[in-house]
Amino acid sequence: MEGTLVDGIVEVGANGRERFYDARGYGRPRGDGVVLSRVEAAHLLYRGDLDAVDGSDFGAFLAANDEILVPFVVYKDLRDRGFYLSPARNGWVEEPEGIDFVVHPRGTGPWDGEVEHRIRVVSERTDVPASSIGDAVVAVVDEESEITYLETESVEISGSSSFSLDAPVDGTVLGDRVLCWDPPEAIYRRGFYGQPLSGEDGPLQLSLLEAVYLAETGCLEVDGGAERLRARARADEADRFDRRLVAYRELRERGVVPKTGLKFGTDFRTYEAVEDVSSLGHSELLVRVVPVDRVFAPSELALDVRLAHGVRKRMVFALVDGERVRWLSVARLTP
Amino acid sequence: MEGTLVDGIVEVGANGRERFYDARGYGRPRGDGVVLSRVEAAHLLYRGDLDAVDGSDFGAFLAANDEILVPFVVYKDLRDRGFYLSPARNGWVEEPEGIDFVVHPRGTGPWDGEVEHRIRVVSERTDVPASSIGDAVVAVVDEESEITYLETESVEISGSSSFSLDAPVDGTVLGDRVLCWDPPEAIYRRGFYGQPLSGEDGPLQLSLLEAVYLAETGCLEVDGGAERLRARARADEADRFDRRLVAYRELRERGVVPKTGLKFGTDFRTYEAVEDVSSLGHSELLVRVVPVDRVFAPSELALDVRLAHGVRKRMVFALVDGERVRWLSVARLTP
Repeated sequence: MEGTLVDGIVEVGANGRERFYDARGYGRPRGDGVVLSRVEAAHLLYRGDLDAVDGSDFGAFLAANDEILVPFVVYKDLRDRGFYLSPARNGWVEEPEGIDFVVHPRGTGPWDGEVEHRIRVVSERTDVPASSIGDAVVAVVDEESEITYLETESVEISGSSSFSLDAPVDGTVLGDRVLCWDPPEAIYRRGFYGQPLSGEDGPLQLSLLEAVYLAETGCLEVDGGAERLRARARADEADRFDRRLVAYRELRERGVVPKTGLKFGTDFRTYEAVEDVSSLGHSELLVRVVPVDRVFAPSELALDVRLAHGVRKRMVFALVDGERVRWLSVARLTP
Repeated sequence: MEGTLVDGIVEVGANGRERFYDARGYGRPRGDGVVLSRVEAAHLLYRGDLDAVDGSDFGAFLAANDEILVPFVVYKDLRDRGFYLSPARNGWVEEPEGIDFVVHPRGTGPWDGEVEHRIRVVSERTDVPASSIGDAVVAVVDEESEITYLETESVEISGSSSFSLDAPVDGTVLGDRVLCWDPPEAIYRRGFYGQPLSGEDGPLQLSLLEAVYLAETGCLEVDGGAERLRARARADEADRFDRRLVAYRELRERGVVPKTGLKFGTDFRTYEAVEDVSSLGHSELLVRVVPVDRVFAPSELALDVRLAHGVRKRMVFALVDGERVRWLSVARLTP
């Protein structure tokens, strides 16, 4: 059986419909025949179910359409895993923009119209703008054609940690931190602010971020107030500090306690239910704060997600746009 | 007992030598007395062993010398772990440049002159030029004054993997990879080049990096040769491809097989003894390729090292300077 490439799709005539669409979920029917995306046609050529397209075998067809090699690798992998897929073309699937395939639930096909995953294919060197993800699985194809599936999702963050002080505590700015010489025990024990210099009593060190937030909310008094602290922090970090502060504030206000994520190479690790540090569980999220117009390299996403998975935490990106934050969860997926 | 700050060091008079240097390894003797670095003086003030320096207690002394807070945190941590330390001052230790402290082996002190670690203190936001590390432990103090110790070391890389082909194999450039339609089995099985499209037989996909190296060494023939492949690769990646190629070549020539490290967010994972892919063990190194003038953020180092540790591999940076590579190993250390 042969196909013909017309306007970017491959037409297969008489009986194509029954053989390829009805029986195995390739393409879309057109009369007795079927129309296939080039990736689907390549897969049928590869399997030997289609003999040629305009006289070309699998190798010649790929050579003439080399931009489909990377999507082909993903299509083949998902077919091998037992899924039927629909190419994301106008009129073939809903909202095809920004994705390459729709994966149908196992046991269903394009005729059912159900959606298990929306798949976007990128190669190892493709730029991935943060603004472009959040409702699709990103299939990253590396140099050796191994595939990493990253599930991206816009999420809401919330927790039950809350804490307030009756009277502000005094602090002294020391370099890039603030020391409280004689703080109420609760600020560390229940609010999980700062780090005691030694044991759980005595002087408490606050990060600049913690100090700014406490000063802004009337819980800390230092010479020059929050303004001086922000100026000190911006001297080192400029915009980055402002972004981290926006994310920090939002987390605290949503009942989640952020602490530094340096050991994990991220901005924060977070605790969603702090009652007393003596009964603290493991942190749940790793948060990386980035500007909303940030463009990721696939390897950056892979690194963060791999690490978070390894330490049993969830990787979340805080996309900061002025004073607003969009939370983007990225996780490994095995389809 | 009181001290006096003179020219950046704290002098303690009569009996200071016996009490602080001879008995507990602080400072350097001067006559009957002792001279202390400001960090040592702060530690003695903190412990209550020194009453004041020029009338200042611990808090006032730190407030007036706030740049010593971060080194103090590290000094205190290492003292708490049972080590004696010498501040890295000219005449106090050998080669004091670029470090803050020398740590003496447990049970020895400054009078023995033995060195367990050379410590460089950086705070979470300090830039760390790649060229500045390789013979010291970098102690990274995060915002909350938790310390991560990173052992940095210049290393040699070598392995026993070797492979050659009698005759070149033919390949076709397809987008950003090369396909060999009918390659000798050994190129994948024993050379561990490329990735079969399916199973272990049939078409083999090579990355551009693999293809360039094979073409340069006379093992691959493609239209336009290595020059065309390099031009194709540089279109996407410019200098980065050249750097990765220099590192790739050097690894192959040292008997180590590099494969993509995308899943780990690095450039390569490597295998030091490939005989046959059917008996392949785990990869040993994760390699990140950077220009020799690269400046790290401490959190980047922490992220890479944490991940490598989690997957039981060793993190190595390839610092590329023209055609030469310096290999820099970075690992977590618990002092």
